[in-house]
This record gives sequence, structure tokens and C-alpha cells, in this order.
Amino acid sequence: MAANDADKLVTSNDPEHPANLIPALCAKFWTLGWVTGTGGGCSIRDDDLVYIAPSGVQKELMKPSDMYVLSLAAQTDPTRTYLRAPPRLRPSQCTPLFLAAFARRGAGCCIHTHSQWAVLVTLLLEQQGGDSRVFEMNNIEQIKGFGRGFGKAGNLGYHDTLRIPVIENTPHEEDLTEYLEAAMEAHPDAYAVLVRRHGVYVWGDNVHKAKTQCESLDYLFQLAVEMKKLGIPWISDIPRIAPDRA
Amino acid sequence: MAANDADKLVTSNDPEHPANLIPALCAKFWTLGWVTGTGGGCSIRDDDLVYIAPSGVQKELMKPSDMYVLSLAAQTDPTRTYLRAPPRLRPSQCTPLFLAAFARRGAGCCIHTHSQWAVLVTLLLEQQGGDSRVFEMNNIEQIKGFGRGFGKAGNLGYHDTLRIPVIENTPHEEDLTEYLEAAMEAHPDAYAVLVRRHGVYVWGDNVHKAKTQCESLDYLFQLAVEMKKLGIPWISDIPRIAPDRA
Amino acid sequence: MAANDADKLVTSNDPEHPANLIPALCAKFWTLGWVTGTGGGCSIRDDDLVYIAPSGVQKELMKPSDMYVLSLAAQTDPTRTYLRAPPRLRPSQCTPLFLAAFARRGAGCCIHTHSQWAVLVTLLLEQQGGDSRVFEMNNIEQIKGFGRGFGKAGNLGYHDTLRIPVIENTPHEEDLTEYLEAAMEAHPDAYAVLVRRHGVYVWGDNVHKAKTQCESLDYLFQLAVEMKKLGIPWISDIPRIAPDRA
Amino acid sequence: MAANDADKLVTSNDPEHPANLIPALCAKFWTLGWVTGTGGGCSIRDDDLVYIAPSGVQKELMKPSDMYVLSLAAQTDPTRTYLRAPPRLRPSQCTPLFLAAFARRGAGCCIHTHSQWAVLVTLLLEQQGGDSRVFEMNNIEQIKGFGRGFGKAGNLGYHDTLRIPVIENTPHEEDLTEYLEAAMEAHPDAYAVLVRRHGVYVWGDNVHKAKTQCESLDYLFQLAVEMKKLGIPWISDIPRIAPDRA
Repeated sequence: MAANDADKLVTSNDPEHPANLIPALCAKFWTLGWVTGTGGGCSIRDDDLVYIAPSGVQKELMKPSDMYVLSLAAQTDPTRTYLRAPPRLRPSQCTPLFLAAFARRGAGCCIHTHSQWAVLVTLLLEQQGGDSRVFEMNNIEQIKGFGRGFGKAGNLGYHDTLRIPVIENTPHEEDLTEYLEAAMEAHPDAYAVLVRRHGVYVWGDNVHKAKTQCESLDYLFQLAVEMKKLGIPWISDIPRIAPDRA
Repeated sequence: MAANDADKLVTSNDPEHPANLIPALCAKFWTLGWVTGTGGGCSIRDDDLVYIAPSGVQKELMKPSDMYVLSLAAQTDPTRTYLRAPPRLRPSQCTPLFLAAFARRGAGCCIHTHSQWAVLVTLLLEQQGGDSRVFEMNNIEQIKGFGRGFGKAGNLGYHDTLRIPVIENTPHEEDLTEYLEAAMEAHPDAYAVLVRRHGVYVWGDNVHKAKTQCESLDYLFQLAVEMKKLGIPWISDIPRIAPDRA
Repeated sequence: MAANDADKLVTSNDPEHPANLIPALCAKFWTLGWVTGTGGGCSIRDDDLVYIAPSGVQKELMKPSDMYVLSLAAQTDPTRTYLRAPPRLRPSQCTPLFLAAFARRGAGCCIHTHSQWAVLVTLLLEQQGGDSRVFEMNNIEQIKGFGRGFGKAGNLGYHDTLRIPVIENTPHEEDLTEYLEAAMEAHPDAYAVLVRRHGVYVWGDNVHKAKTQCESLDYLFQLAVEMKKLGIPWISDIPRIAPDRA
Repeated sequence: MAANDADKLVTSNDPEHPANLIPALCAKFWTLGWVTGTGGGCSIRDDDLVYIAPSGVQKELMKPSDMYVLSLAAQTDPTRTYLRAPPRLRPSQCTPLFLAAFARRGAGCCIHTHSQWAVLVTLLLEQQGGDSRVFEMNNIEQIKGFGRGFGKAGNLGYHDTLRIPVIENTPHEEDLTEYLEAAMEAHPDAYAVLVRRHGVYVWGDNVHKAKTQCESLDYLFQLAVEMKKLGIPWISDIPRIAPDRA
């Protein structure tokens, strides 16, 4: 694709255009402590087109012209040619992980944070030993912020248990892909995967769902850390006091 | 009501108009961590007209055109017809709870937060067992931020005990209504009700009072959690060193 | 003074004018959690004119036209007549406390916060019993943010001990005045007084000094609470490794 | 240099010009709690020209006209003459420390924060006794935000140990210089030096690298404090599950 045509992919006056939305979201996520330093990022899929923030930039200062664009259909191409690549930048190592959410879950947006609450939850699971490969929490209202699972209608209920798988970290982020995909297979209903001592990947059918699920999850991770400090367990047996009509 | 007339209910250049104020308040509350994900919300009553934010939207991005409007006088109508309903959105499950504050307390504004401090306070009460259905705190200056009660003049004093009832959570938010109303009956002076593992409802005679009482309460909940971490009790016996002339 | 002339006292295009600066400062302090609900406030003295924020307003929404103005010279007047009083508002109960800092220390600005860190420090002192009427900390760099004392040149050094007296709270804020004045007498070098279970008053020769001292103090209070959680004492014996040339 | 010519050094419409960038960075750092009160600061080197924020100003309100400018080549000059000095301000005591990073590491930017997390880390090291002169952490993804060292290509890996030396504080900040330089000698790969009970100095080849390294370090210090509260060690032995291809 000619450079001129490629640049059209990231040029729009619409604030909802992925090339404009990713910088706006990353600036917001920076204030939340999700993407400080050069860690974390965000990708949006518009039909077959995938927009991805580059590696190593200051997350709150990103510009539309910094975006990479590639075709999801062509993602099996091992050389991963980009429809548009910004000059003087490097593609994100998160790229194959974002693509996994798009290809296997039909996600429209995937967010990767280095939130300290996510990291602390994985450390607390590691500390308590046993099966530390899944975060579980129930009987907290905010759990209702999550869909029941890929292809399922409705959201989780108050008494349901939210389960987020945890995968081990690898020296190179792109090597996480096979573990992320295995976790997706083992936990088909999860909309997120924690990465030990690293952070979390959260996706959703569209930007709105990915973002609100990511906010709800970060809320729950922070709550979980505070509960641990106060000696309150993450799983409880709370009796129903009204019928579940879901 | 014709759609055109209905839209006039949410169209105003006045920043103090409820349809403009609710989005501005929700954006502010989002930065405080009160309404992250899709949880929490806010409603304002202007005489008989009740303005309510819809369900499931990104709370910091709400627009005046997203607002529902209904008549308080007609709220006994079990079908709850709206004077104005935005297209493609769903009404908030909080609606009957907001209406309870308006109808039973003559409130002008009701705020519902998922603040982690509120949730942690209900968890700490549950943990300590016994009568965990009321949060009590005294001898903290910020308690003076609360009115003495519905129909009573003046505010609580420094040595008074603030009491906020706690109700159990239900799978469906609207099922909370009867418990909220029972708590209002049992605690006629309270301007707020905590919902276990969920959050808090706070109201006031007008937006100013609802908001400042909600801020004061969140301040006290956060303080209460920190006090618990440091082994300091919420109730104390502090001698008066000056006359109470209230 | 005619209402028209009185309003001129709070009308200026200069952002540094006290009537403009107080609202800007309070909005900033609101984001720091210093003046949430209706607690806390700020006063600026310009020669003989004292500008004070009113009682009970939303602190981040204050306007220049909300300001009270009075003459410091006339402050012994027990009826405390105002040169300018806004309609429909009440004067701040903090007024006599601000005046004490202006009259007794020649301060140009006084800030009153309900910062939770200040409150927690007074609770921790109370908890440890003994002489809980002074907060002491040394060997922290931020201590250098404080002047050596009223009428003394230079700032505290790294190895100096910062001492902030603590007074007991009273049911009515104005009743604090005599205790505040007594604490000023007993601690002539202090630029701040803690109020048990309430907050702190901080002053300085001008707005710049009051604000930076208030920021430094809030920093130290927060640090002190974190140190307590981690079992680190507030007072330490650190050897000097370089000459003190102050 | 004539005052008129000197002022040209700090006059530019380019937001990336050091005289514009330092105030913008300090305002951002203020919101992060890194430069509250009058503590902390920032310096940028543009070839031989060094721009430094003055001492004692409100860090979020700095203006380009407040900047000092000096020549790095002339820095051995013991009288340290400035190419440009603002009227009515004092030079920063951090000046010789910033110059050390520029002269010895070819840094393009150096940031000094009083972050509470940095201070708490030095207090925790002091508390645990033994060799408390280096902070060490490994097996956390955010460690990858740091370069391998001066003159070395690439960044640290996930399994590498980040080492930040700690120097003791001195009554006068400029007396830190010899200790900072000694720490640089002893830890040639470090991009930061902690100062006990004071804060941290962080530098990088340019503003982007200094800032993102400073953000990553603050993230790690906060994480370290939280880990300590939860009983999780900073150094761990995590097996590699994928080849390190660095």
C-alpha cells in the first residue's frame, strides 16, 4: 500500500475512529496508573482492520500518526506485514496477544494494563501456593460488570464466581501468546487473562465493553488486595435473600 | 408525549439543568472511583420531574440526551411509563431506589456509588459479626457534614454518632427496594443506606446536600478502613472540653 | 460600605487577587482530598483586608462573589462586621482561627484542611497515649520545607525535629480559637496546629509559603501513617555525614 | 551575556523546547506527588546548554522565564556562572547533581522526586539492616522499562535484577554530589540513585527515557512497599518457561 494511502487509514475527524480513540484511551489509562512507563497498551479492531499502538512511546502522549494497522485475515502470515507502519517506531510485542483476542473471541477491543493491583493479585495467589492459576471472587456487586462468556447472553450475577486464569510470564511478551491461547481454551468464558508478575489482558465485543470490563476488573483486583490486608476471604458463602430471575 | 416534546425535557443551555448536571456529576464521580465500570449512578428530582441516568453506559461519557425522565406522582404506576426515554438504552435498575428517596424523604438528588471504601466497611462489619447491620462512628469532625435527619433542623455535632444502616444485597438491584424502604423506616434520620458487598445510596434535599453528604460519607468510610488497619476503634468516648450550644 | 463598593472588593481580572485565588486554591485542594464535603477552607490577607471563603459551599465550585471581606484592624470588634458579605451565605466558623494566624503571626494566608492523613496522625498519637499533644518527626528531607519559625530566618534542616502541636477538638469550631492561640504561645516556631479527629491549620507569610508548607505537611502526615503501618518510628537518630553549614 | 540575549535562551513557541518542557513536566509530576511543597525538580540538557528549574517555587506553577541556563562545558568553573538567571530566584541546590548525570553519563534529562514510595523503600532497607545500600528487585515485568546500562544496547529482561544504589542524605543537597558520583562509579549500569529519607534521582539519554524510567521506578517502589505489607519478598527465584533470546 502506498504510504499516502496507508496514512489515510489513521486520518479522521471522528473522535470515535480507532486511530483517534486509542490515544485518547491510553491518555486516560495513564492517569489510572495502568500504562505508566512504557508498559501496557490498547488495540481496536474495526471489521478486518486492527489498529495497534506502537512499542516504547509515552502512553499519555500518543498521536494517531503513531498507529500501526494490519489485516486480521492476514494475521496467519508469519511475517505479519502491516498495512500501515509509522516511521521510526517499533511494533508492540503485545501484537500477537491482541490478535488472539480478536481471532478467537471476535473481540473488538483489547486492553493490556500493568496495573499494580493485577500484579499484586498474581503475587498473592503465588504466595498462597496450591492452584495459583486462577483468580476467583464471588458475592461482590461489581462482578455483574462482566458478560457470562463468549457467545452467551447476559452478564454474571451477584452470586456467580468470576474466574480469571493466570498464566506465567515469559522473558519475551510475544512468547506469552501460546499460553494466553491455552488459557482461553481452558477458560472459554473468561474475558481476561492475568499474567503473573506482569499485568492483565482484558477484551470485549467493542471498546465500551472492553473498557468497562477492564475498569470493573481493576476495581475487583484493588478490592481483593485490600480484603487480603484486612483478612477477608475472596470467596464467601452468602445466602440468597431474593429469587434469581436471570 | 411526542418524541419532540420529550426531548425538550433534556435540552437546556443551563449547566444547572438536571439533564446537564447529571452527566457533569457522573464524570466527576468517575474520577473519584465511585462509578467505575458501569456501576453506580445519579438521579435528580426537579419538582415532579425525575431525571435518571440510563443503565450500562460509560459513566464519564454520559450525554444529556441519554437521560430518562419520569413523573414522581405517577411512580405508583406499576408499568412505570417514562415521559422521555432515550433510544437504544435501558432504564437503570436503580430507578425504584432513587424513587424511594424522592417519595419518602422528599429528596432532590440521590447518588449511588460502588465506592470500594463503602464495600470494605460492609465487609468489615460482616467480619466482626454480631449486629452488622449498622455502621456507627463518632467523634470525627467530618460527621458535622450530615443533617440531623428528615424534617429536623441543623446538622449532627462532633460528639454525635453517625448511624448508616446496612442492607443485604440481592441478585437484582430493583429487589433491594423493599429492604431500602424498611431501612428508611427503621432509621428515619439516616441520609444514606449501605448495601452489603455492593455500595451505598446517599440522598439530600438538593444536589448540593446530596453531593456534600456523599463526599463526607466516602471520606468517613475511607477513614474507617484506615483506622481498622491501624487498630483504632470507630466509636470512642471523648470528653467534651467546651459546651455544646447546638 | 455600600453594596456596590463592597462588591468592588471581590472584583478583579487579576488571577492573583485574593477573591480569585481562594476559589482556584480550594478547587485544587478539593482534588487533593483536603476540603471534601463542606469541610476545610482558606483565607488570604492583603494588608488589612482579610478574604474568607463562606461556610457550607461546595469547595471546588466557589466563586469570587462568594467571598467575605473584613478588616483585620477591626477584628477585636466582638460583632465582627464585614466590609463585604455575600447574600444567602453564612460566614465560616473558621474565621476567628484564620484571624489568629493573621494577627499573631502576621501570616498572609491560612489553610484549613480535613486531610485524612492529618486526622490519622492525631488518632495515632492518641492511641499511643503519653504526651499526645505534639507530632514530632525528624531526619526526613521534606522537613526542609518549613521555616525555622516566626521572625526567624531560614528553614529547618534535615536533622531538625519538626514539631506540630495538637489541640483537642470542640463541638463548635470557633471555640477552638483559645486553644489554637494557646498552642501558638506554647509553640512559637510552629506554622501549623493539628486539631484532634478534625484536621490541621497551616499558615505562612504569603500564599506561596502557606501552600507549600501545607503540601509538605500533608506529605509528612501521609508518610508518617505509612511508616506506622510498616513499623518504622517517626523519630530516629541518624548520624551526620557532612557538616551542617546552615 | 546581555539580559536580552539571555532571555532568548528561554523563549520559544516550541512546546518541546526545554524552557517550555520543564514547566509542563513539573506540573505533571506535581499531580503524581513527586514534587510537592518545594521539593524535587527537573533539568534538561540540549547539547551543551543545561536548563534547570529554580529553587523554592511552586512546582506546578513554574514558567519558562523562571529557568536557569548554564553551559555544561563550563561546569568545572567553581563559581558556576549562569548564561541566564531569572531575577528574584535562587538556583536549585540540585544543580551539581543534575550536572553529574549530564557530565558522567551523557544524560539528556535528569528528574529528582521526593516520591513517598522512594522514601519508604529507603526506610524499609534501613529497617532490615545488613547491606541497606542497594534496592534490588527481579521477576517483575516493569523492570523491562530500564536500559541495561550506560553505553549498553537494549533493556533489562524480566528475570534480570534491577539494582538501585542508596546513598545517605546530607544536610545540604549539594553535598550529596560526591556520594552520588561515588554511587555512579560503583554501579555503572544504574540509571537512578536513591537518597535515604529523601527521594530519588533518575536520568536518561533524553526526556522520554528519563521520564519513562522515572515512572517505571516509581511504579516498582510503590509495588515494593505494597509487597512488604503483604509479606512478599522483592527477590524471587522464578523458573524460566521460555528461552531468553535477548
